[in-house]
Amino acid sequence: MKERVRKILGHYAGSSPGTLSNLARMLNHGTLAGTGKMVILPVDQGFEHGPARSFAKNPAGYDPAYHFKLALGAGCNAYAAPLGFLEACAAEYAGEIPLILKLNNSDSLYSGDDPCPAITASVDEALRLGCAAVGYTIYPASAARNEMYEDLREITEEAKRKGLAVVVWSYPRGSGITKEGETAIDVVAYAAQIACQLGAHIVKVKPPAAHVEQASAKKVYDAQKIPIASLADRVKHVVQSAFDGRRIVIFSGGEAKGDQEFFEEIRAIHEGGGFGSIIGRNSFQRPYDEALKFLSTVMGIYAGKRVEKAPPAAATRPKPTRVAAKPVPAPRPKPTRVAAKRVPAPRPKKRSQRRRK
Amino acid sequence: MKERVRKILGHYAGSSPGTLSNLARMLNHGTLAGTGKMVILPVDQGFEHGPARSFAKNPAGYDPAYHFKLALGAGCNAYAAPLGFLEACAAEYAGEIPLILKLNNSDSLYSGDDPCPAITASVDEALRLGCAAVGYTIYPASAARNEMYEDLREITEEAKRKGLAVVVWSYPRGSGITKEGETAIDVVAYAAQIACQLGAHIVKVKPPAAHVEQASAKKVYDAQKIPIASLADRVKHVVQSAFDGRRIVIFSGGEAKGDQEFFEEIRAIHEGGGFGSIIGRNSFQRPYDEALKFLSTVMGIYAGKRVEKAPPAAATRPKPTRVAAKPVPAPRPKPTRVAAKRVPAPRPKKRSQRRRK
Amino acid sequence: MKERVRKILGHYAGSSPGTLSNLARMLNHGTLAGTGKMVILPVDQGFEHGPARSFAKNPAGYDPAYHFKLALGAGCNAYAAPLGFLEACAAEYAGEIPLILKLNNSDSLYSGDDPCPAITASVDEALRLGCAAVGYTIYPASAARNEMYEDLREITEEAKRKGLAVVVWSYPRGSGITKEGETAIDVVAYAAQIACQLGAHIVKVKPPAAHVEQASAKKVYDAQKIPIASLADRVKHVVQSAFDGRRIVIFSGGEAKGDQEFFEEIRAIHEGGGFGSIIGRNSFQRPYDEALKFLSTVMGIYAGKRVEKAPPAAATRPKPTRVAAKPVPAPRPKPTRVAAKRVPAPRPKKRSQRRRK
Amino acid sequence: MKERVRKILGHYAGSSPGTLSNLARMLNHGTLAGTGKMVILPVDQGFEHGPARSFAKNPAGYDPAYHFKLALGAGCNAYAAPLGFLEACAAEYAGEIPLILKLNNSDSLYSGDDPCPAITASVDEALRLGCAAVGYTIYPASAARNEMYEDLREITEEAKRKGLAVVVWSYPRGSGITKEGETAIDVVAYAAQIACQLGAHIVKVKPPAAHVEQASAKKVYDAQKIPIASLADRVKHVVQSAFDGRRIVIFSGGEAKGDQEFFEEIRAIHEGGGFGSIIGRNSFQRPYDEALKFLSTVMGIYAGKRVEKAPPAAATRPKPTRVAAKPVPAPRPKPTRVAAKRVPAPRPKKRSQRRRK
Amino acid sequence: MKERVRKILGHYAGSSPGTLSNLARMLNHGTLAGTGKMVILPVDQGFEHGPARSFAKNPAGYDPAYHFKLALGAGCNAYAAPLGFLEACAAEYAGEIPLILKLNNSDSLYSGDDPCPAITASVDEALRLGCAAVGYTIYPASAARNEMYEDLREITEEAKRKGLAVVVWSYPRGSGITKEGETAIDVVAYAAQIACQLGAHIVKVKPPAAHVEQASAKKVYDAQKIPIASLADRVKHVVQSAFDGRRIVIFSGGEAKGDQEFFEEIRAIHEGGGFGSIIGRNSFQRPYDEALKFLSTVMGIYAGKRVEKAPPAAATRPKPTRVAAKPVPAPRPKPTRVAAKRVPAPRPKKRSQRRRK
Repeated sequence: MKERVRKILGHYAGSSPGTLSNLARMLNHGTLAGTGKMVILPVDQGFEHGPARSFAKNPAGYDPAYHFKLALGAGCNAYAAPLGFLEACAAEYAGEIPLILKLNNSDSLYSGDDPCPAITASVDEALRLGCAAVGYTIYPASAARNEMYEDLREITEEAKRKGLAVVVWSYPRGSGITKEGETAIDVVAYAAQIACQLGAHIVKVKPPAAHVEQASAKKVYDAQKIPIASLADRVKHVVQSAFDGRRIVIFSGGEAKGDQEFFEEIRAIHEGGGFGSIIGRNSFQRPYDEALKFLSTVMGIYAGKRVEKAPPAAATRPKPTRVAAKPVPAPRPKPTRVAAKRVPAPRPKKRSQRRRK
Repeated sequence: MKERVRKILGHYAGSSPGTLSNLARMLNHGTLAGTGKMVILPVDQGFEHGPARSFAKNPAGYDPAYHFKLALGAGCNAYAAPLGFLEACAAEYAGEIPLILKLNNSDSLYSGDDPCPAITASVDEALRLGCAAVGYTIYPASAARNEMYEDLREITEEAKRKGLAVVVWSYPRGSGITKEGETAIDVVAYAAQIACQLGAHIVKVKPPAAHVEQASAKKVYDAQKIPIASLADRVKHVVQSAFDGRRIVIFSGGEAKGDQEFFEEIRAIHEGGGFGSIIGRNSFQRPYDEALKFLSTVMGIYAGKRVEKAPPAAATRPKPTRVAAKPVPAPRPKPTRVAAKRVPAPRPKKRSQRRRK
Repeated sequence: MKERVRKILGHYAGSSPGTLSNLARMLNHGTLAGTGKMVILPVDQGFEHGPARSFAKNPAGYDPAYHFKLALGAGCNAYAAPLGFLEACAAEYAGEIPLILKLNNSDSLYSGDDPCPAITASVDEALRLGCAAVGYTIYPASAARNEMYEDLREITEEAKRKGLAVVVWSYPRGSGITKEGETAIDVVAYAAQIACQLGAHIVKVKPPAAHVEQASAKKVYDAQKIPIASLADRVKHVVQSAFDGRRIVIFSGGEAKGDQEFFEEIRAIHEGGGFGSIIGRNSFQRPYDEALKFLSTVMGIYAGKRVEKAPPAAATRPKPTRVAAKPVPAPRPKPTRVAAKRVPAPRPKKRSQRRRK
Repeated sequence: MKERVRKILGHYAGSSPGTLSNLARMLNHGTLAGTGKMVILPVDQGFEHGPARSFAKNPAGYDPAYHFKLALGAGCNAYAAPLGFLEACAAEYAGEIPLILKLNNSDSLYSGDDPCPAITASVDEALRLGCAAVGYTIYPASAARNEMYEDLREITEEAKRKGLAVVVWSYPRGSGITKEGETAIDVVAYAAQIACQLGAHIVKVKPPAAHVEQASAKKVYDAQKIPIASLADRVKHVVQSAFDGRRIVIFSGGEAKGDQEFFEEIRAIHEGGGFGSIIGRNSFQRPYDEALKFLSTVMGIYAGKRVEKAPPAAATRPKPTRVAAKPVPAPRPKPTRVAAKRVPAPRPKKRSQRRRK
Repeated sequence: MKERVRKILGHYAGSSPGTLSNLARMLNHGTLAGTGKMVILPVDQGFEHGPARSFAKNPAGYDPAYHFKLALGAGCNAYAAPLGFLEACAAEYAGEIPLILKLNNSDSLYSGDDPCPAITASVDEALRLGCAAVGYTIYPASAARNEMYEDLREITEEAKRKGLAVVVWSYPRGSGITKEGETAIDVVAYAAQIACQLGAHIVKVKPPAAHVEQASAKKVYDAQKIPIASLADRVKHVVQSAFDGRRIVIFSGGEAKGDQEFFEEIRAIHEGGGFGSIIGRNSFQRPYDEALKFLSTVMGIYAGKRVEKAPPAAATRPKPTRVAAKPVPAPRPKPTRVAAKRVPAPRPKKRSQRRRK
């Protein structure tokens, strides 16, 4: 095992061998294997925003198999989705890519001021499907936060007892803060802290903005002159707020934006010491090959590669240097031009070679 | 096993042999056995709308035995009902027709803005009664949706562990959407997606209308030019939204309407790739023989038969022979040559030979 | 076993032998044993209305032993009461009369618009006390109906698993309907249907009035010309609504009224195919001997005896022909003039002879 | 065992030997042992009203050991308190005096219109501490009554299964009645009935006033001419309402008042057939010796002793010898000649001899 | 074992050997070992107030290891924190310092009038992490108090059964009292009583002010002339309210204030018979060495050392006499100037020497 991964696992000393193995499975999979960095493909948008808003742009994504293939082809560290999406193809892709079962989800046919997702799967289902981790969303600042924390507490305790890792999406939202406050630096740092205190192994937050939401926090940020001007500064502060770097913190990409702007954000996260990204719509809403290139660039940044900036006016995307020599586990044929056909490429026959580790 | 059924079962790879067997039981029963299409008889209207509104039109339906006989006689793939109706005759009809126990139900003596059915039976009761599946209704867009999703989650996990199939009625309703929105194409597609993500094996939705309810969805339907003009188009979109055809989606018939109009709807569902229908009032509110003919026509459409349209002005229905002078089963009338001779084989006499598989 | 009872038990085919035995215990006990008719003594008024309102008129009723004696002496099929009343004398009367433990109860020191009784006993307590059945009240039309249905569901499943019968008091009440609607024919028929669908073996409703409460039902009652003019018609409709006679439906007596009027009501229930009555205050609020005569008349009607009507102006009650040759189990001394003394008559010593069956 | 106790235990026929033993332990302990009468010391005021309001008047009472000593010294039948107070000294006093663990309690730092105590201990804790019974408060007339009844139901079932007795404090209170109604005769009688129906072995109510609260009850009290003029009459009616004397009903003393007035109340309770008293503040808020004399007088009344009335104008209380210089038990002062010499025998030294029966 | 500790443990007679051992572990650890006094380091502020407000002043505190080291280096009796903070380093520091797992926590991204923390860890987690005790916060005076009391009840019963000690933070807060009332003497004394009655072994309250909040209490404080003028008086009253000294009561330090003022408060607590302090922000928000000195002074006061007061105008802190000859367990290198580096000093290698006792 690479030293960097061993060091990170050291921060989880006292965890069961099962949990450590599953953390290692994710850290040692894909293009960024062994670097201590992670890029995860999450696809819960079908549940959260509906199928058309999520998949119409690249209709291959209606098929649950597509995302397994994408995560695998792009060399992501793991693929995260709700029960239905994972269950549909977990047998077919057993043992090929670490899976994260999202245990709670919201839809947008109803929404209130104080969000609270429904619990939609269990730790035992994650075991049944061969997952490496469970995922769970909390909304600090919602009036329903206690319910979420308490459900997470039970899930976390069970997951750890059963040897899984726990990934917490910590998204402050609700009547306790303003809309702008959802990405305020004090709020995002606090969200990371809460998830860590609740026992998360991996925490996912939004890239923090320079705004400071709470007056009581503002006083301290000013008095202590905490640097929050650049995104890298803020990422650094968030990582510090996640037990001074002892917990893996990764960042979401948010709404689709220009690629260069996106890569700048990745560079800042990398520079600030962030552990990686979780990239959904920016991945699966483009054609397969384009997505592979896009994710390759992102991973290149995390792997420390210098990526040249595209000339400002250039409409064409820069050709990413291929970071991962072989992002796909050994014999699997490289899927090409999938989006056009939307049919999963033929797969090798010998299932016995693809056992769950 | 027919190739089409084997292919459909392949979409549920990873399910337990028990669940696969029960899906196969339904797919391989009745007139449409082996076609991959399903017509299910559901009779929960006694609970949902009251006895008179449900059965006065064809009083034979007050007797729970009638519906077993009807489903069997008409060659339906399965019969779905609440606990009481199934329990009353499950012993008598043991092993003759796949049963779906509806696990939650609403009555209409009280109703609020945000519906939430009561849980009225359990997975263990379904096992006790020899059912192939459990049925469960969710109302996305209700403020109480989370409660329904979470109860469904527990039920689904238990049902799968115990080898049953799960059929989800996904009917958006409640303060999150308008009345018109309940059948809007974006909402119905979303409803199908939610049910699939929650782990349903079979999803039942309403035939979608061309209306698009949510502004955020409308933008995408317009931008991506998703075809929703014809019912067949919309059915296709719903099937796509149900994991790109990997999950069985069937459609309800809704309120009684003219037969020809109904058959047109079936043709559109068939054309759009829908897996079948669930037809309640349109079946059991007509005299027995008429119902058999009606369902035979429906099944014929799903079986790919060309059915001639009735001359437009024909108002008179064929005169049904009164079956139900005494709706008690023995001796059971042999159902006459329903579509494409997929009539269940004559029943063996000795009850002891008909153990639950 | 009498043919009629065997036929009724046939409607519960698939039930466990334990449950069938307990249904048989009630059908085969007392004056109406073997007739398929039932008269049950319920005494939950101490809880529901308070002790003085219930027992001051005939103070012998303060003593829980009194009601066991009354039910036994009058030849009722069963005696139903809350935990305390049964527990107080269940040991003393063990094996003498089938008992129904009421599992939920309301008191009238507090009342809201949407009633919901408290659960006050359990299936296991019913087993401990040697009961044949559990009783449970639901209030369809209450905003709290789901809670009641769901608790009943659990109780019903457990009771059936443990070999007990389930008696459901189905009394629509609450903000979903008007006061008049509580006894409307559509509502009472619906109430019977709901209880049956929830899995009740025996359903108790109120004698229905000719009023139709719900507009959507009214249309059907008119269109289908459902006869509801006479009480006998309405009872017939309710019995039909209870799975076409496959479930035992009995009727409450309601508030005390003139005896002749009461007997007329019984005659109508009998004529309409009702399975019997559950008679509380009309029994235990009169002196013991009078109650015996009164109940004897009622049972006579259900047994098919012709009872002469009293001449209209006669203030004196008609002398009932004794239906039951021996309403009391063999050697027990016939209690006479108890009310005067209010002390239970001395009982035979040998407790070992009175074991629970 | 004395005949009177045997007779009372006979009212609990069918209870487990464990429960009967524990009822006997209380009936056979202390000054009133064997008389069928009980005086219980309850000390939950520290929780209910706060420490200063409860103990500042006689600061010895801050020490939990004091109340064990007082109950023992005064020859009470049992000592009742919340978890903390019992746990603090239950080991020290193991086997010396029957204990009742109060399982629910309210504090007065917050109060709403519809009270509902918190559950603060369990049946298993009662077993761990060697208690003879559990105590539980219900507030009929509170909107939260169902919650209390249902929790009590579970506790009662468990306590009986584990061989404990159940003592219910039944105090109507809440938005269903007026303040005056809390002690109205109809309400108190009803409260006794409810507790009995819920399965209590021993019921504690407040001494009823002549007021009748509920209009529906008033009609009956008037029509049946139920005597409620004197306290003795009312106590008789309450005892009758508690299953005609088949359940032990005891009365609280309420707010401190003049001693003579208090003794008059005790005489009326005795005359009306009440089974005894539960006396808290009137006991532990006086100096130890005074409390012993006071309780001795009370017990004397219940034992049937004639107690001379104090001359009307005597304002001075007997000067109590200061017991509690050091309220710690050893060496325990021998309680001096309490009523009718039913002083507990001198304690054996060897703790090993004092195992729980 | 020192006599004083043995005497204190005697107050918990009847507790399991496991619980007694864990109480002893805390009483016998660190600088105050054997004195019967305790100073505990609590660090839940990261959860309660957010990371920046808690740790920016002394950024070493972002690292969970820092607080273990601080508690150990300063010779605290125990270190208390939420799950995440303990779990991060419990393996590393196994067996070095008694740990208290805080089982419930609030964050300040949302706050309502009636606070109720979320349960964030369990008794089993405390066992897994090798803790000596669990900690739990109740907010008497909150409308949600019952929920907190009932959860605590379950936790307390389980913790005692599993051999842990229970520390209760009792902080009245919520709509039942005013802001000023939160530290009123009557309220704080009541809070201590409630925690004791709920079965806490150790109670933590705020230093009480002279204000009396409740009118009903005021009458008694006045009538009984309870001395509450000085803080020592009030502490004495609180200790008396905690079962007359039979329960360990410790005091929080509250918001940061001048050191001399703080030490005066400690002196008053000591003088009033308080068992010690729990000091968070005042410890970890200063540089490591300063914190050690500060805590050394506090411990010196509790150990009975005379500490000279600093001359009023002196800005420099008085040099505390080192109370504990060796506050750190034997061979551990004395960390110096940690804050500057923020990296935990190198630790001895042999993990096998540091087993949990």
